[in-house]
Amino acid sequence: MESRESWSGSEKQTARRAFDAALEVALARTMAEFKSKANAATLPADMWEVEDYLRERRREIDRTFDYRYSQLLFVFAQLIRAGYLDESMLAGLSQDKRDAIRRDIAFFESR
Amino acid sequence: MESRESWSGSEKQTARRAFDAALEVALARTMAEFKSKANAATLPADMWEVEDYLRERRREIDRTFDYRYSQLLFVFAQLIRAGYLDESMLAGLSQDKRDAIRRDIAFFESR
Repeated sequence: MESRESWSGSEKQTARRAFDAALEVALARTMAEFKSKANAATLPADMWEVEDYLRERRREIDRTFDYRYSQLLFVFAQLIRAGYLDESMLAGLSQDKRDAIRRDIAFFESR
Repeated sequence: MESRESWSGSEKQTARRAFDAALEVALARTMAEFKSKANAATLPADMWEVEDYLRERRREIDRTFDYRYSQLLFVFAQLIRAGYLDESMLAGLSQDKRDAIRRDIAFFESR
């Protein structure tokens, strides 16, 4: 059983897979929203609003998807909260890592 | 006959009409290009490229469309060069203003 701080090879595989899947979801949702906004745009102001939307989404995705092992449990909690990741994808992580993620989720939810 | 520096009421009307028409052309072209790029986007990189495109276009339009009488002849020359404005829309300006615009256009073309 791995601790919170050390990551076994198979945990790293689990983490990478979950991280990549969540990123794909986040990008696909952004793409769908972007296409819908672009399609509905009729005025110049709508067009600039799409620019603002994309800039914010890009910044948020860059900020959230931080693949450092020191950050990863916190990142997974955020991704689950945001609906980008299903907790079941993290079944390959040690119990104490999953507990730490749940505590982070509970912390977000309490705010 | 008005000089290059002073603008009569009717010249101001001509200038405003030409400026607004050119802005409409610039925005309509940007909108068409934006819609086409958005429509063709399939990868996240395409989406971020649309963001970059919009940011550059917004910046360029903001910079180019400068309605100060001290800048306007130079601005009109740029707009004609960019294909946003037809010189015929400036027929209501004094001869020396139109000459100054032509000299600016010639200057751009010589570069």
